[in-house]
Amino acid sequence: MSLLDFLEYVGTFVFAISGVMTAVDKKFDVVGTLIIGAVTAIGGGTLRDILIGSTPAGWMQSSTYLYVIFSAFIISYFFEKYIRKLRRSLFIFDTIGLGLFTILGLQKTVAMGLSTEIAVVMGVVSAVFGGVIRDVLTNEVPLIFRKEIYASACFLGALVFLLINLISNYHQVNVIVSVLVVIGIRTAAVKLKWSLPFNPRM
Amino acid sequence: MSLLDFLEYVGTFVFAISGVMTAVDKKFDVVGTLIIGAVTAIGGGTLRDILIGSTPAGWMQSSTYLYVIFSAFIISYFFEKYIRKLRRSLFIFDTIGLGLFTILGLQKTVAMGLSTEIAVVMGVVSAVFGGVIRDVLTNEVPLIFRKEIYASACFLGALVFLLINLISNYHQVNVIVSVLVVIGIRTAAVKLKWSLPFNPRM
Amino acid sequence: MSLLDFLEYVGTFVFAISGVMTAVDKKFDVVGTLIIGAVTAIGGGTLRDILIGSTPAGWMQSSTYLYVIFSAFIISYFFEKYIRKLRRSLFIFDTIGLGLFTILGLQKTVAMGLSTEIAVVMGVVSAVFGGVIRDVLTNEVPLIFRKEIYASACFLGALVFLLINLISNYHQVNVIVSVLVVIGIRTAAVKLKWSLPFNPRM
Repeated sequence: MSLLDFLEYVGTFVFAISGVMTAVDKKFDVVGTLIIGAVTAIGGGTLRDILIGSTPAGWMQSSTYLYVIFSAFIISYFFEKYIRKLRRSLFIFDTIGLGLFTILGLQKTVAMGLSTEIAVVMGVVSAVFGGVIRDVLTNEVPLIFRKEIYASACFLGALVFLLINLISNYHQVNVIVSVLVVIGIRTAAVKLKWSLPFNPRM
Repeated sequence: MSLLDFLEYVGTFVFAISGVMTAVDKKFDVVGTLIIGAVTAIGGGTLRDILIGSTPAGWMQSSTYLYVIFSAFIISYFFEKYIRKLRRSLFIFDTIGLGLFTILGLQKTVAMGLSTEIAVVMGVVSAVFGGVIRDVLTNEVPLIFRKEIYASACFLGALVFLLINLISNYHQVNVIVSVLVVIGIRTAAVKLKWSLPFNPRM
Repeated sequence: MSLLDFLEYVGTFVFAISGVMTAVDKKFDVVGTLIIGAVTAIGGGTLRDILIGSTPAGWMQSSTYLYVIFSAFIISYFFEKYIRKLRRSLFIFDTIGLGLFTILGLQKTVAMGLSTEIAVVMGVVSAVFGGVIRDVLTNEVPLIFRKEIYASACFLGALVFLLINLISNYHQVNVIVSVLVVIGIRTAAVKLKWSLPFNPRM
């Protein structure tokens, strides 16, 4: 297993935990909680795969994803109180997941022969639409439309990746730098309470 | 037309009626009601087909599905009062549909060369996501996340099908037994008011 | 660029503006507004392409769509007050988009070898599901299920196109006539406050 594979499983794991927490807050039953955890973890990548015409999606071709999601479910369901106390560490992993899914989604789209503009869009879709589907299924206005710098951090990370790629051949380094850009912007946004202007009337 | 085909049309018909009833309750207009009826009937199978990469979906390759849905719409729209009185019989057909769609979805996924774990997941998706899409489109928190044993009955039926398949070669019998398992669990859950624990904090 | 291509870009542009306006009303941030604009413009055609198995969707194969959407976003975001005053003209373009997307969706489906019944359904899906996805993402009951003749105008335009096609070989004329049917019905419905019966209990 490569470092990137490992980090993708970590991202899946943490995104699943975030979905389970939301479902627990909403008082869903066990099955509903498991479904929301799974959808949050794999929804973005699945939507990307459907859009770029690469089906069945990755998680359908390797059972590891199902086991990662199921482990996240078991752990967060039965140790829910402890997980909540770990919120700060969870935020870090969630943000790593965000950065990784952006760059992995971008790369997969380029590998399918699509343009770099579309690859940037698909990178952002991979990273954020799991959360959007989670919010739609739990009948909330998606969080990313209302709060904080989230999709835009992914977007900037994707642009940085493309820029570095033009001038450098050290692929692994490029991935690490652009993931760090996403993490940096997102963390700064939360710590410094950055936000984007809401709308032209304000 | 085989027995299985016939039962699949019955399931489609009854799921469409359930969608039409929901839309009528929500005061949707004629077109909205027809759309919700159709989405409830074919949404789960369509999502499965998109995910496993088998598009166009079955209902797009045979017009029979459209006619079945349209008949269900006409009947339930114009004889709405009588249909409501038949609720108990409708429940039976809805539950038959649930069982059938689970096993048909599982089999179609295996036939596409995917693993049995994924086939179980896709069986449940086929059976329950029509209702989930109906609830999302009518702006409700999906019922299956909140109430009663529903997705879990499908899940157990799918497991039973796989288990019997390991030891028996009587395919038709396996289908019937596992569909009956779904029907039995679902019916018992409703009659005996079984429910799954809501969440770890309770 | 053919006249049809040009009109498709116009439809995309106007649908994007309608999405941006909705997001501004909902007080989404800049990124959320851009996403809702894009989804409204290309959601219906994308869903059609996924359903008929023609992925990646058209907008992923030509960057022009992204630029059209981005222009619509910039213009409607920064000149929002003026755009609101142009509502009447916007309605005309929105209705042209509705008619065009219906007939283009129908033709693309027929070109994929699917039946005319399915082509009619896919024409309507192309035209109206962008708006449905917009409403789902902004947590509203989709407008088309509740108000005015909208999907039904598309449906009738699609039928007219098929009927003329049986008796005439002047393809361009057929397109224009059936798009005008959609525009005519939709405009009459709004001006004369036509509506479809809500439900059998009224």
